[in-house]
Amino acid sequence: MLRIGMLTSGGDCQALNAAMRGVAKGIFAKVKDVEIYGFRDGYKGLIYSTFDMMTEKDFSGILTRGGTILGTSRQPFKQMRVIGEDGVDKVEAMKHTYHKLNLDCLVILGGNGTHKTANLLREEGLNVITLPKTIDNDLWGTDMTFGFQSAVDIATDTIDRIHTTATSHSRVFIIEVMGHKVGWVTLHAGIAGGADIILLPEIPYDLNVIAEYIKKRSAAGKRFTIIAVAEGAIAKEEAELPKKKLKELQEKKKAKYPSVAYELAEKIESKCDKEVRITVPGHTQRGGSPCPYDRVLATRLGAAAAEMILCHEYGYMVAIKEGETCKVPLKEVAGKLKTVDPKAKIISEARTIGISFGDK
Amino acid sequence: MLRIGMLTSGGDCQALNAAMRGVAKGIFAKVKDVEIYGFRDGYKGLIYSTFDMMTEKDFSGILTRGGTILGTSRQPFKQMRVIGEDGVDKVEAMKHTYHKLNLDCLVILGGNGTHKTANLLREEGLNVITLPKTIDNDLWGTDMTFGFQSAVDIATDTIDRIHTTATSHSRVFIIEVMGHKVGWVTLHAGIAGGADIILLPEIPYDLNVIAEYIKKRSAAGKRFTIIAVAEGAIAKEEAELPKKKLKELQEKKKAKYPSVAYELAEKIESKCDKEVRITVPGHTQRGGSPCPYDRVLATRLGAAAAEMILCHEYGYMVAIKEGETCKVPLKEVAGKLKTVDPKAKIISEARTIGISFGDK
Amino acid sequence: MLRIGMLTSGGDCQALNAAMRGVAKGIFAKVKDVEIYGFRDGYKGLIYSTFDMMTEKDFSGILTRGGTILGTSRQPFKQMRVIGEDGVDKVEAMKHTYHKLNLDCLVILGGNGTHKTANLLREEGLNVITLPKTIDNDLWGTDMTFGFQSAVDIATDTIDRIHTTATSHSRVFIIEVMGHKVGWVTLHAGIAGGADIILLPEIPYDLNVIAEYIKKRSAAGKRFTIIAVAEGAIAKEEAELPKKKLKELQEKKKAKYPSVAYELAEKIESKCDKEVRITVPGHTQRGGSPCPYDRVLATRLGAAAAEMILCHEYGYMVAIKEGETCKVPLKEVAGKLKTVDPKAKIISEARTIGISFGDK
Amino acid sequence: MLRIGMLTSGGDCQALNAAMRGVAKGIFAKVKDVEIYGFRDGYKGLIYSTFDMMTEKDFSGILTRGGTILGTSRQPFKQMRVIGEDGVDKVEAMKHTYHKLNLDCLVILGGNGTHKTANLLREEGLNVITLPKTIDNDLWGTDMTFGFQSAVDIATDTIDRIHTTATSHSRVFIIEVMGHKVGWVTLHAGIAGGADIILLPEIPYDLNVIAEYIKKRSAAGKRFTIIAVAEGAIAKEEAELPKKKLKELQEKKKAKYPSVAYELAEKIESKCDKEVRITVPGHTQRGGSPCPYDRVLATRLGAAAAEMILCHEYGYMVAIKEGETCKVPLKEVAGKLKTVDPKAKIISEARTIGISFGDK
Repeated sequence: MLRIGMLTSGGDCQALNAAMRGVAKGIFAKVKDVEIYGFRDGYKGLIYSTFDMMTEKDFSGILTRGGTILGTSRQPFKQMRVIGEDGVDKVEAMKHTYHKLNLDCLVILGGNGTHKTANLLREEGLNVITLPKTIDNDLWGTDMTFGFQSAVDIATDTIDRIHTTATSHSRVFIIEVMGHKVGWVTLHAGIAGGADIILLPEIPYDLNVIAEYIKKRSAAGKRFTIIAVAEGAIAKEEAELPKKKLKELQEKKKAKYPSVAYELAEKIESKCDKEVRITVPGHTQRGGSPCPYDRVLATRLGAAAAEMILCHEYGYMVAIKEGETCKVPLKEVAGKLKTVDPKAKIISEARTIGISFGDK
Repeated sequence: MLRIGMLTSGGDCQALNAAMRGVAKGIFAKVKDVEIYGFRDGYKGLIYSTFDMMTEKDFSGILTRGGTILGTSRQPFKQMRVIGEDGVDKVEAMKHTYHKLNLDCLVILGGNGTHKTANLLREEGLNVITLPKTIDNDLWGTDMTFGFQSAVDIATDTIDRIHTTATSHSRVFIIEVMGHKVGWVTLHAGIAGGADIILLPEIPYDLNVIAEYIKKRSAAGKRFTIIAVAEGAIAKEEAELPKKKLKELQEKKKAKYPSVAYELAEKIESKCDKEVRITVPGHTQRGGSPCPYDRVLATRLGAAAAEMILCHEYGYMVAIKEGETCKVPLKEVAGKLKTVDPKAKIISEARTIGISFGDK
Repeated sequence: MLRIGMLTSGGDCQALNAAMRGVAKGIFAKVKDVEIYGFRDGYKGLIYSTFDMMTEKDFSGILTRGGTILGTSRQPFKQMRVIGEDGVDKVEAMKHTYHKLNLDCLVILGGNGTHKTANLLREEGLNVITLPKTIDNDLWGTDMTFGFQSAVDIATDTIDRIHTTATSHSRVFIIEVMGHKVGWVTLHAGIAGGADIILLPEIPYDLNVIAEYIKKRSAAGKRFTIIAVAEGAIAKEEAELPKKKLKELQEKKKAKYPSVAYELAEKIESKCDKEVRITVPGHTQRGGSPCPYDRVLATRLGAAAAEMILCHEYGYMVAIKEGETCKVPLKEVAGKLKTVDPKAKIISEARTIGISFGDK
Repeated sequence: MLRIGMLTSGGDCQALNAAMRGVAKGIFAKVKDVEIYGFRDGYKGLIYSTFDMMTEKDFSGILTRGGTILGTSRQPFKQMRVIGEDGVDKVEAMKHTYHKLNLDCLVILGGNGTHKTANLLREEGLNVITLPKTIDNDLWGTDMTFGFQSAVDIATDTIDRIHTTATSHSRVFIIEVMGHKVGWVTLHAGIAGGADIILLPEIPYDLNVIAEYIKKRSAAGKRFTIIAVAEGAIAKEEAELPKKKLKELQEKKKAKYPSVAYELAEKIESKCDKEVRITVPGHTQRGGSPCPYDRVLATRLGAAAAEMILCHEYGYMVAIKEGETCKVPLKEVAGKLKTVDPKAKIISEARTIGISFGDK
């Protein structure tokens, strides 16, 4: 008898179901005597022991479905060791559920925060395998996370649509792209959508450079400028602030602007004599059916996870490197961020074709 | 020799190019000795006599292209008779251009504001034919405007994507849909996207009703509530204000909230103990390739306009009624708004399947 | 206690689930004491009494899903009164199931064949309400059937894709569009996709006219010609054959050509010195998520059906006319085909912009 | 003064325009004194010296456009040295054009055949840079070719649509996917679309295995089986034939079946008692707007090519390896095919989740 717990944690994204289907199909094909416990709403389900017994049928027909059939919730790593109002020590509660159900392992799908907690559970002696889920693509140890390409597709579609409007009106258009503290989605969607300016957290921007660039385009007879800005983009002068001061500043801004695009728009309108329009695709970037690229990636990672479970190999994140699935020790992954290298070739190639990163 | 002026005015939308292609193909097929003047950026091009001479080739391959090859701009009707800083009387300037170029007629594509000005030009003796362009579908005299169905498709796609996220998280989701002062796009996208609550300008909402509905859903074990709100939606108590007071209030709100969804979210969060997420697809609803429905509609209207020009029938908007193209006198169209009738069958059908309009 | 039987029959199409959801939501919202019997695979389920008891939850989340949750099968009307090898009189068997389950009514979703059988059941004393489902849009008594616009969207997408290839290569491209014996889908997709030639069953074509048109395009420097041909398109000389001879001929062709496009390609290649490429999107035209237009239409018709059931109004097809749902007596619908009128305005508008129907 | 010739050869695909835009933007940004000769319809334009002088504007707005603005044609490598009816030695003619126009280099976009000719031109002393274009992904020396992911997306969409129909009807569905002699597109689309059986040229199939698999599915209560078959798929017994015999056999089949799917359908229908339906998306797989993945890839490769031109580095194909652009000597690329390795991890992962490759 094999007993597997499964959960999805953090913000949802595309191909979560595809990945779980991969794991389940791989297991059910080989082992008949198996129980899969689907914990509800991420770690919460593990803490409070709320779960559904999953059958083979539950994982059928979900390859193309967005969201997660298990539900998810955000359970910040920082609060894992904090005993809440309910008097529950979360980590102990999770261990309790795990042992009570006599689980052989936990399959955990999530992003950075999720991996920190997963590693903690590993340190506490649980058998854990993780799958790298996030549209942000910021997980260290894997070339790619599922959700990323789907988010790029949606953000690109947004830029495409704005492009047709842009050719009709003479304006500056700002499209704010998701990505948390990194610029992966913005970089790829910006290039794919033909953005003129791309602003990333990894390359702090100089407003003067942006204004100059916009004016130069106007002077060259170009009607519009399209800016793809990452939700985590930051101005040079702010990037140089001490951490504490920066945090204070960001709190202040949060009260003033719904998001970074609004601040940028205000700045640009005051610098250039241009009408600025904002588009924030927001959560749509996490939604809908996964793109074929993500379905293949998630299926492969899921199948590889199944193979690992059947070999009792635990304590790893299943990753993709140079086109091949592989396993990376969880302790190496947890807590590390994969950011865009400002000196990467893709950045210099983008500069080659005239894209500005607002820095020079 | 036939001399035709053409312009697109107001906010851009899908199928403008398809419609102009229809007109041009219809003309070029019958008349060889023809000149088409494409005025740049709407009425502005007519006022300042900036135009391109269009060839048959210019109208080829544009059926599927979003935006408008002529550019557009907003020229409020109210300012048409206002002599600007440049000392130009806009109406006189337009007449001057028209007569100077010895035009036989003007083909004008636009929405409500555009039609008011078009009618003014007709009253001033110009030969005018208009085509009903707007995603808002608020033009009186036609069952349908092109742009509408494409906008519905995009807004629906947004709701669809949020739906997959909604099933993963337990929240209230607000999607703000375009439509100016009417609720057509919101109504159709709301039904097509499976929204639980649809808020329209034509049916002022009661916050208590909304809060009650959300609570009832929670009580019934439903994790999320999806609200499609028109950008022009209004609360009951505000709808009852005298016009002047309402305007003052709206000015105040404009300073406080980026748009109606933000206000509604704040209200709901304070009433229900629920996390609320906002998505505003914004200008994407105007962008991208027109949907097949709009391409057929725009092509038909364009072809019908060509036939009218060849018969020297002027002073009409080309419309679609009960599936057939027809002509409606411009003077009857100008200044009238087509709104959603709160007693329409489609509303009661939506209520039948449990959709709330927030009114009772 | 209300007992409703429900079934979907004939070729599947988009929005079947949306329509059934409309009916079910409308019923469950008003009546608590209700049983819905979902018959499996069309009339077959009614004949052999195979069904699932459907709950409210079964109809939740299916608005956007293609196919039919009940399954479907083709049960030709002609064989309804034929007693099969199993010794079963199908009509009697259906009546038996109906009475045995003590049903109040049957909700039947289907196209032309389905409606003939539905009317037969009505004549046999059963309470029947039907919903007009078919991508072909050939049902008499309704302006529109659900599935049609979705099929148009897919067929148009196919033509769009071929268009980009067409501009790269110098060829004739034939796209074969579904529609059974009528040309609705081909006509709309052909216009929406910018086809040069549209061939419909309702307008028999003359190969010489087509060849002439292709040559004229070549002579005018146009690299390619795109032909949208309905699967039921027919040559003039064949349309004039006596019915029996035609049938023989068609049988012969069936053995020789996979479908009409292959025959047409052979003819054109022999007439014009042009490479011809064929694309047959086939069953994809029935598949995938319904377009928003169809979702709204199907939801409205479903809700209207629910309202009728609650009023015990039976013996009707729920239809849409001039934008409003209405009811049409089943006896008037059964056995009648809605074809494209060759003299319709949409045809002459298409001709106006230079589209050839291959007839003159 | 820099003089660059540019051409696209072979079957068209997505992102050709995106790649050329990358090259041109990269060049125009750095060098003002530059002439770009766009040869019409592939090598044909170089042979007969038909070209357009391209401006910066010609490359603007084409990032998202399918097809190729230069046109293309197939010029088989085998006939390059064959003097045609027109008495022209093609290679000499190309050299003549090159030298007559005083070109600094040729930028050639194409697949396998194109690369053989490009290498020949290099051997003849011309400066050549190539870009790997093909939906087939069969070019040796690069991890990925642009066009591939877009084709996967379209083929997957086809399988998705068939899937919804499949759940409604009880049948075997065959979707024939492009890919010439290799199985890359079929493999990825098959996994992404959730195909049950995937047949590749690299893994010859055994009809008995397929029939067995289908029966097993039926026995397990699964209504349908979806087969993704590569256009180059081959049966075991045929793969073992001597080359000459195989060729004869294939010629015979060509006369009998429109394509491989039709043959397979006939075989399966005769072996299993199942209705089989065929879908052949065909050329649509090459058409339409490139997916964001391909746009980024093509833009990067184009930019890298521009950088190489500016450094006078010739004789290379620009490739992508492990996520980075790089250059591969043309002489190493020409004539080699990149096939799917039957022992690759992706194959065993697909087997893990129960996908059959029809071989065992």
